Amino acid sequence: MNLEEYFKEITDNVNETIKSYVKGDTKDLYDASMYLLNAGGKRLRPLILVSSSDLLGGDRERSYKAAAAVEVLHNFTLIHDDIMDEDNLRRGIPTVHVVWGIPLAILAGDLLHAKAFEILNDSLKGLDSQRYYWAISIFTKSIIIISEGQAMDMDFEKRSNVSEEEYIEMIKKKTAQLFSCASSLGGIIAGANENTVNKLSSYGLNLGISFQIIDDILGLTADEKELGKPIYSDIREGKKTILVIKALEKATANERDVIIKGLGSKNQEDVKKAAEVIKYLALEYAYSLAEKYLDNALNDISSIESKNEIAGKALKYLGEFTVKRRK
Amino acid sequence: MNLEEYFKEITDNVNETIKSYVKGDTKDLYDASMYLLNAGGKRLRPLILVSSSDLLGGDRERSYKAAAAVEVLHNFTLIHDDIMDEDNLRRGIPTVHVVWGIPLAILAGDLLHAKAFEILNDSLKGLDSQRYYWAISIFTKSIIIISEGQAMDMDFEKRSNVSEEEYIEMIKKKTAQLFSCASSLGGIIAGANENTVNKLSSYGLNLGISFQIIDDILGLTADEKELGKPIYSDIREGKKTILVIKALEKATANERDVIIKGLGSKNQEDVKKAAEVIKYLALEYAYSLAEKYLDNALNDISSIESKNEIAGKALKYLGEFTVKRRK
Repeated sequence: MNLEEYFKEITDNVNETIKSYVKGDTKDLYDASMYLLNAGGKRLRPLILVSSSDLLGGDRERSYKAAAAVEVLHNFTLIHDDIMDEDNLRRGIPTVHVVWGIPLAILAGDLLHAKAFEILNDSLKGLDSQRYYWAISIFTKSIIIISEGQAMDMDFEKRSNVSEEEYIEMIKKKTAQLFSCASSLGGIIAGANENTVNKLSSYGLNLGISFQIIDDILGLTADEKELGKPIYSDIREGKKTILVIKALEKATANERDVIIKGLGSKNQEDVKKAAEVIKYLALEYAYSLAEKYLDNALNDISSIESKNEIAGKALKYLGEFTVKRRK
Repeated sequence: MNLEEYFKEITDNVNETIKSYVKGDTKDLYDASMYLLNAGGKRLRPLILVSSSDLLGGDRERSYKAAAAVEVLHNFTLIHDDIMDEDNLRRGIPTVHVVWGIPLAILAGDLLHAKAFEILNDSLKGLDSQRYYWAISIFTKSIIIISEGQAMDMDFEKRSNVSEEEYIEMIKKKTAQLFSCASSLGGIIAGANENTVNKLSSYGLNLGISFQIIDDILGLTADEKELGKPIYSDIREGKKTILVIKALEKATANERDVIIKGLGSKNQEDVKKAAEVIKYLALEYAYSLAEKYLDNALNDISSIESKNEIAGKALKYLGEFTVKRRK
């Protein structure tokens, strides 16, 4: 079995699991809830979770369910984030609140949030009580941390003096925590000890930081059609990405004016000019930072004794893919 | 100890538990999350949960936490419902999204949703794996059912032909399920068997139905200041309460016109006229229906062998209070 087949088997099973749980009689609500899940997505977090579990010889019935729980949770946060950020396009289609209205989009997110726990609970059924507590605890704390990260991200939009340290802290919470949750859960359901789960957790965190830095880069450099959402939206929303922070740090007075004028602007020409200056000043640095965190992630994986060769390869590939992807 | 002291001890401990969990560094987010919890509320669900646990000799450390989880969950649904229903006043103060804006209100609800699981998980720590699964399962399914109920409620606003049966189905989901969750959890953490938990579940469901019918009545009859929210808002929002359904069923052609004109209207005079006709036609019936479900709830409690006299009294009192309350 090659990596492509390995990933396809996981993705197909996780998608089936999601479909078997997210269905019900209140049609509009369930249609709105499945809409984004049906629109694609890379299923990176499920792949990380199942590979992490495989690496330690975990049971696939458990890992498919835990992976579905994490993916459903992820999609809940996307639906609510798109309302909060007033984003109208994702995965190449209008966002949930654009199609279904804000009230039903809020409710669909809430339903998926609860469904994630329902699926996770079924994944954990029969585990010993201590491991049960551990898994629910990590999952729950992750959602709390993600919410705090989203609050920081929104707060940063209003501030002009965000430091690189604050940015890393924010993306650790908003993005990387769920990657860390996925890899940790894979270990916990596979019966790993605390030391191994900590290594997996660190792998997920490092990979997640790298993922978000690349996401910020792609928001300025990607092909809009490939990306599935409008380019430069971070600049229009005044987001303090690592590129903006680094560019402001290195900018001359003139360059600084161009960047500030574009941040949060509705004028497409100002936004574009700011983007060009930001890329010129910060793109190289952002890539090198993403590479640094990727190296950390790869070291974490190398430090774990593997019971499954292809799972180890998969976890390394997923790290490298994160940095090399175009969307 | 009298009932007043019994209830105060529970409420104080549950409030302390909530405060000890819902706090953190992202100040705005936690302020927005605690805002409604700090604004009062009857803490009916926590009282039901702890009394149900006491009735069977359950441990107070567990029941305080489980009760805090249910109350935090309840407040999450209130925050999101107020956004969806565009309600601007609750517990006598502006709603969360009015004070903090819709994005932070969505996020505060999400945080409380996750916090509820965090607190519940701590409440269950050390229970055997099977009971763990049972408790998480009931809690999770309740949130799913509540979301479906809210979707039905919003759907009914657009429909004119809602039946009494559909209304009862909707309030079972939207309101009564969380009462049933509270009483069931009280039993589960106290070590009750399935038969006893089913009786407690039925008590909560019957009491919850009765509670919502009285809520619908108070929305037309209460003193606005005492109620803490604007009177007649159900009529303005076109909600299909049991009073509206029964009144439409009994109305003459003229009366029907007055009701239809008021439903969903922004004209205060039309709303008031509709309210008068609805009360005249349906108030007595609605009260008798609430009494019927209260009787069922009291029968459920009588059928359980009590280990604690005051807890049994408390559960009966809470049922009677639900129907007799003025706010």
